[in-house]
Amino acid sequence: MNDSMQQPRSIKSLAIVGATGAVGREACRILQQHHIAVDHLKLLASPRSAGTAVDVGGHSHKVEALSEASFNGIQYAIFSAGGAISREYAPIAVKAGCIVVDNSSVFRMDPDTPLVIPEINPDDIADHQGIIANPNCSTIIAAMVVWPLHRVNPIKRMIISTYQSASGAGAAAMEELKTQSADVLSGRDVTPSVFPHPIAFNLFVHDSPLDEHGYNNEESKMVHETRKIFHAPDMPITTTCIRVPVMRAHSESINLEFTNPITPDEVRKILHEAPGVSVVDIGTNQHKSTDAEHAGNHQPARFPMPIDASEHDDCLVGHIRQDMSRSNGRAINMF
Amino acid sequence: MNDSMQQPRSIKSLAIVGATGAVGREACRILQQHHIAVDHLKLLASPRSAGTAVDVGGHSHKVEALSEASFNGIQYAIFSAGGAISREYAPIAVKAGCIVVDNSSVFRMDPDTPLVIPEINPDDIADHQGIIANPNCSTIIAAMVVWPLHRVNPIKRMIISTYQSASGAGAAAMEELKTQSADVLSGRDVTPSVFPHPIAFNLFVHDSPLDEHGYNNEESKMVHETRKIFHAPDMPITTTCIRVPVMRAHSESINLEFTNPITPDEVRKILHEAPGVSVVDIGTNQHKSTDAEHAGNHQPARFPMPIDASEHDDCLVGHIRQDMSRSNGRAINMF
Repeated sequence: MNDSMQQPRSIKSLAIVGATGAVGREACRILQQHHIAVDHLKLLASPRSAGTAVDVGGHSHKVEALSEASFNGIQYAIFSAGGAISREYAPIAVKAGCIVVDNSSVFRMDPDTPLVIPEINPDDIADHQGIIANPNCSTIIAAMVVWPLHRVNPIKRMIISTYQSASGAGAAAMEELKTQSADVLSGRDVTPSVFPHPIAFNLFVHDSPLDEHGYNNEESKMVHETRKIFHAPDMPITTTCIRVPVMRAHSESINLEFTNPITPDEVRKILHEAPGVSVVDIGTNQHKSTDAEHAGNHQPARFPMPIDASEHDDCLVGHIRQDMSRSNGRAINMF
Repeated sequence: MNDSMQQPRSIKSLAIVGATGAVGREACRILQQHHIAVDHLKLLASPRSAGTAVDVGGHSHKVEALSEASFNGIQYAIFSAGGAISREYAPIAVKAGCIVVDNSSVFRMDPDTPLVIPEINPDDIADHQGIIANPNCSTIIAAMVVWPLHRVNPIKRMIISTYQSASGAGAAAMEELKTQSADVLSGRDVTPSVFPHPIAFNLFVHDSPLDEHGYNNEESKMVHETRKIFHAPDMPITTTCIRVPVMRAHSESINLEFTNPITPDEVRKILHEAPGVSVVDIGTNQHKSTDAEHAGNHQPARFPMPIDASEHDDCLVGHIRQDMSRSNGRAINMF
């Protein structure tokens, strides 16, 4: 969310399902950061996590165990506790009169559920039947940057390779990256538990199930969710999703083909004005490069990096270049 | 080098310039591993490293300081000590009658210097004038996999995003990744020294100098070197080069457009038979995925990973999929 967007001053009642997970904690942090007052904040989690105290805006909130009665009298609920919990409890919450914002993929492609990025298709919210889905994190990053360009110059093809952090797999995955890295540095053997493969100083193809074409679920989600959000059911999109040993913030290398010619300067200008997007595209790298052949002593160029992005609400974009493998000036690379 | 390739039984004399660097050490390891006997092995480095003892095939070799007289009576020299050293000493070695294999980028695009990958264009060696250049590591990886396909079905466009390890920037960079990771894990502040940005749990656009189009040197090298090796001066290629916190072995996400339709099975079949390439493309990922929505208990799929590739001479390739953003069946994604 961008500061320039209108924000609610207060919410009467809000439940966060999965409050002790990575997304739940981030939701609590954002409530605090944006001074969103919640008269009645209910933190819900598995019975195992019930009783934990979580600090939100200086107040300690006790986490309660999720149950069928949890949503009585609650206005809004954010679900982020995995698909199985959403599938079971989101309809219960809706029946109790609650409006559900669901972070799982269960309802995203359901034709009765709007799939919304507030900066892109806020009007779709009006069609909700109780549940509003929010897209996969990798989808959001690409869509935030591509949408403002697509509006001006329709996209004809999108090719994306991701560099996804451990945070996308939850708090336990981030912990595994830490412990495993320490193990590798100390020469200890590594036994993956959360991830199927070692994550420390390694990377691998996203481990979600593969479809009949060999694409993993993360890759398919990016294609289908982007098409739904853009109201462009046939948009040509292809994706390769890779998990990298980064703590927070996903990165993506994006190649775009447009209907009409476009220059990197035009892209930068459009993205400078786009809500929720920050352009970080500075410098010429005339510094002491690791490339031993090119010495110098100037400032390194600045492009988006996960350690800069992870404390940001905005999506960072840079390294914007004309793709010269298309002679017609209609293709752009960015990171 | 593939075991099936014919190997020299012995070399009369060989100098390794930059013997204490990451590539120099790897060269020593490969001599040993492939049982290449060298009657007179001369390890050369900066005066600072002179005197260091390096073990090659059970024999301790003392590193000597590089000088103008170093190449007298030496048959072959491998240079991997950066561009400045190659520019100054490679011509001296050639004058002394030595055949130089140069790992720097100084001579790669020189029309009088063959740029060679033995599996692809060994015949170009015949044209040498004393120096034979070997390509950039990122170029080699892509070329090894793309060449066997290009021969059967000419490539019309290549889009590559890299995931480059610290090893590409040398031994000191690998050391920095280790120390910095330990610092981050202990909550200590991090001051980058070899790299311009923090590398631990982070990633960034390759820090080589940018050209007027905003492409860094690594990205341009991949384009121009591949065209030279393939004898395809106009091949449309576009690249995005990213440094990731991995110790050894670069990865690349490659999107290929062919002249004629091609299926993933055909790609796998061609690559199975390609020298220096191993296909790792197994399974369906029906396991306990980190994606909480998809539980199961089967084996995780196997695709290429840096920790598997770094002890391999072969280039690993997998996650081969039809790119369905092209309806004509002429495009393929691979990792």
